[in-house]
Amino acid sequence: MSRIEFTPDTPGLSEVPGFRVGFAAADVRGKGGDRPDVAVLHSQAPCAVAGVFTRNAAAAAPVLICRERLASSRIPLHGFVANSGNANACTGPRGRDDTLAMAARAEIACGAPAGSFLVCSTGRIGERLPLDRLLPGIDGAAAALDTTTAAGQGAATAILTSDTRPKTATARFAIGGKTVTLAGMAKGAGMIQPDMATMLAFLATDAVVAAPVLDVLLRRAVASTFNAITVDGDTSTNDTVLLFTGGASGVAINPDTDPDGVAVFAEALEKVCACLAEKIVADGERTSRVVELMVEGAATGHEAERIARCIGNSLLVKASWAGGDPNWGRLVDAAGYAGAALELDRLELDYDDVPVLRAGEAQAENKLAWKKVVARPRFTIRLRLGLGDGAFRLLATDITEGYISYNKSE
Amino acid sequence: MSRIEFTPDTPGLSEVPGFRVGFAAADVRGKGGDRPDVAVLHSQAPCAVAGVFTRNAAAAAPVLICRERLASSRIPLHGFVANSGNANACTGPRGRDDTLAMAARAEIACGAPAGSFLVCSTGRIGERLPLDRLLPGIDGAAAALDTTTAAGQGAATAILTSDTRPKTATARFAIGGKTVTLAGMAKGAGMIQPDMATMLAFLATDAVVAAPVLDVLLRRAVASTFNAITVDGDTSTNDTVLLFTGGASGVAINPDTDPDGVAVFAEALEKVCACLAEKIVADGERTSRVVELMVEGAATGHEAERIARCIGNSLLVKASWAGGDPNWGRLVDAAGYAGAALELDRLELDYDDVPVLRAGEAQAENKLAWKKVVARPRFTIRLRLGLGDGAFRLLATDITEGYISYNKSE
Repeated sequence: MSRIEFTPDTPGLSEVPGFRVGFAAADVRGKGGDRPDVAVLHSQAPCAVAGVFTRNAAAAAPVLICRERLASSRIPLHGFVANSGNANACTGPRGRDDTLAMAARAEIACGAPAGSFLVCSTGRIGERLPLDRLLPGIDGAAAALDTTTAAGQGAATAILTSDTRPKTATARFAIGGKTVTLAGMAKGAGMIQPDMATMLAFLATDAVVAAPVLDVLLRRAVASTFNAITVDGDTSTNDTVLLFTGGASGVAINPDTDPDGVAVFAEALEKVCACLAEKIVADGERTSRVVELMVEGAATGHEAERIARCIGNSLLVKASWAGGDPNWGRLVDAAGYAGAALELDRLELDYDDVPVLRAGEAQAENKLAWKKVVARPRFTIRLRLGLGDGAFRLLATDITEGYISYNKSE
Repeated sequence: MSRIEFTPDTPGLSEVPGFRVGFAAADVRGKGGDRPDVAVLHSQAPCAVAGVFTRNAAAAAPVLICRERLASSRIPLHGFVANSGNANACTGPRGRDDTLAMAARAEIACGAPAGSFLVCSTGRIGERLPLDRLLPGIDGAAAALDTTTAAGQGAATAILTSDTRPKTATARFAIGGKTVTLAGMAKGAGMIQPDMATMLAFLATDAVVAAPVLDVLLRRAVASTFNAITVDGDTSTNDTVLLFTGGASGVAINPDTDPDGVAVFAEALEKVCACLAEKIVADGERTSRVVELMVEGAATGHEAERIARCIGNSLLVKASWAGGDPNWGRLVDAAGYAGAALELDRLELDYDDVPVLRAGEAQAENKLAWKKVVARPRFTIRLRLGLGDGAFRLLATDITEGYISYNKSE
C-alpha cells in the first residue's frame, strides 16, 4: 500500500504550508468583465526551485527570464506571478522589459527581494502585454494573498485560457512523523505537445530539497507525465513547469541520508504531475476522447516513443477516434512511418481487452467488440511489436470538427 | 523560352506513343455501381522503368512486389495494373499472393511475359482484395486497351479514391527533329505527406532512357515535387511513383552523348511531376486553401525542410488558414519547435507581397492587408531566417471541419 494520500481536484497551491496564493482580474484580454487572469504565489522563506521549460526556439520572454533566474544562484526565489490572455511571445526586446516589469511589480507588492520572482504568461502570441491594466492587477493579486480554498481555486482559474475547468492535485505523506504536502495546478487545452511540459504547471511543497536533487526529480517526473501527452501535436512557446520548495514541514528530502524518503517524494511528485497531465489531455480543446496509447516491445525506448507520437499525432487516426471508428489500419500506417523497426507479421494490437491483431492478422471476429471499445470516452490501445524491450506510454486525444472551428480565428 | 510544350489536364498516359491504357469497373468496394476502379497500362516494347516508393515500414504488398521486380533485371517490364478501393496493405502473406495474382492476370490478358507487370493498389487498409470481382475487371481493362482520350481519362479516373477530379499532365519537346512525349496521371486526397510520392503517380515517355539514368532523374524530380507536399501529415503505406519509358520516339536521353537533351528531359519530367503534385494538394480532402510555403535563409537545407514541414503540418496553423486568419504567431511557434536554428530578431515574413515581420517585429500597420491575402484560395508565405542558404518549398493545405467529419468513419 502506498504511503501517499493523493487527492485530485483540490484547492492546489494554497494547501502547502508556508505558501500563500492570490489572484485578480486585470482584463488582460481587453474584453472587459471580471474573469481572473493574474495569479501570484509567495513564500516568506526563500525557496529552492526547479523548472523545466519548452525547447521551442521561439521561447517567450518569460521563459527566458525564468531560465536566467534559475541559472543564477545569487538571489533566492520567493514566488511567481503568472497571467493568462497574452503569452508575451514573439514580442522582441520590449517583451523582455515587460516581463521584468511584471516581476518587479510582484516583488514590490509582496515585499520580496528584487529579482526573487519568476514570471509566466500564456495566451495570444505576438502582442505586447497591456501593462497599464496588468500591473495594477498584480498589486491586487498580491494584496489578496491567502491560504484559503478560494485563493487556491481562484489562482488555478486565473491561469486558464481555452481550458474549461481548473486543474489541481495534492499529495501528502509522512516522514519521521511529520507530514509533507506537495500540490500543484496546471493549464493546457491547445498547442499541447509539450516538449517538457504543458503550457503552465506550478507545483509547491513544504519539504526541504536541495536544488540539484529537486531538478533531477522534476525532470524525471515530467518525462513520463507532462512530456507524454499530446492534444494537437503543437509545442508551445511558453511551456513551463515550476516546482517550489518552501521547507515549512521541516522534512528534508536527501538522497544521502534518507533514500526511502526520496522515493516517496518522487512517487508523490509523479502522482501529482500525472494527474495534472491527464487533466490537461481530458480538457483538450473540443476533444471528446482520451486514449492511453501503450507501445511495447519496440527495439528501443526511443523508437517506442516515436511510434507512439506518430500514432497519437496522426490526424487520420485522431479523426477516426472522434468518429468512434476502430480504424486499426490507419494506426499501423502511422506506426510504419515513425522511422522505427517494425515487422508486420509480429504485431499484436489490443483495444482495451479486445484482441485486434495477432501475428499481424486482423481478428475479424472481434470487430463488434472493438467498435464498442472505441465508442468509450477513455480507452487503452496497446501495440506490441515483439522486437525488444522498448516501451512508451502516451496520453492522446481525438480531434473533432469543433477543434478546427474553434481555432479558425484568434 | 522553354523548349517544352507543357499542358495540364490532358488525357495523360494514352498520349504517349507506344503505350495503350484501359480501365474497367470491377466493384472493388463491393458497393455495386459502375465506378471505374481498375486501370492497366501496356507497352508492346519492353520498358526501362524507374520507381520511387513509400518508406513506410508497413509498406503494402504491391509496393514490395514492385520493389522486387524493379530490383531484378531478369525480366523486362511491359506495364502495370492498378486498382482503387482497397490498398492491399497490412494483409500478410495472402496480400502478397493476391498482388501476384493481379500481375499474372494482367500479363495473361495483355499477352505479356510472366513477371513483366507491376501492381499498385490504393484505398482501405487491412482487408483482402476481392479477387473474385477484381480479376475479371483486369480482363475487362486489358480488353479495352486503347490510345484514345477516353481511355486515358478513364484510367486517370479509375485510380481515384477520395479525390474529386482526375489529375493528368503532358509535356512535349523536340530533340533532333523528333518529338518526345512525357505524360502522367496521379491520385491523392488523404494520407498525404508522401515520403517520396503521392499515393500513386504513373508516368510514361516514349524516349529511350537507360534504367540507371531514369532512376536518378525520377528521384531528383520527386524530391522537389511529390515529396514536397502535405495535406494531413500522414505518410501512406502505398505511395508509389512509376515512370515507364517505351522508346517509340526513337530519341535517346543519354548524359554521355547529349547532356542538353538530358536537361530538357529532366525539366519536362519536373514540370509534369510538379503539376501532378500541385493537383494532389489542391484536391486534398475537404481542404479550402493551397499555401505555398517558402522557407529561406535557414542554416541548412535540411533545417529549412524541417521548419517548412512543422509549419505545414501544424494543426493550429492549418486551422487558422481554414479560417482565413493570418495567425503568424502560430507559424513562428511551429518554426520554433522544428529543432532548427532560429533567431527571432532576424525573422522576416511575408504573406504574398505584404510584409508581416521585419527583424522579428510585427508590421502591425499591414494587418488589414495580411487578412486579405489569407482569404485567397492560394497564397504564398515566405519566411526568411537570415542565417544561411538553406531553402525549402512546401505546398500545403488548410484543414477544415470537413476533413475531420469526412475521416471520422471508414
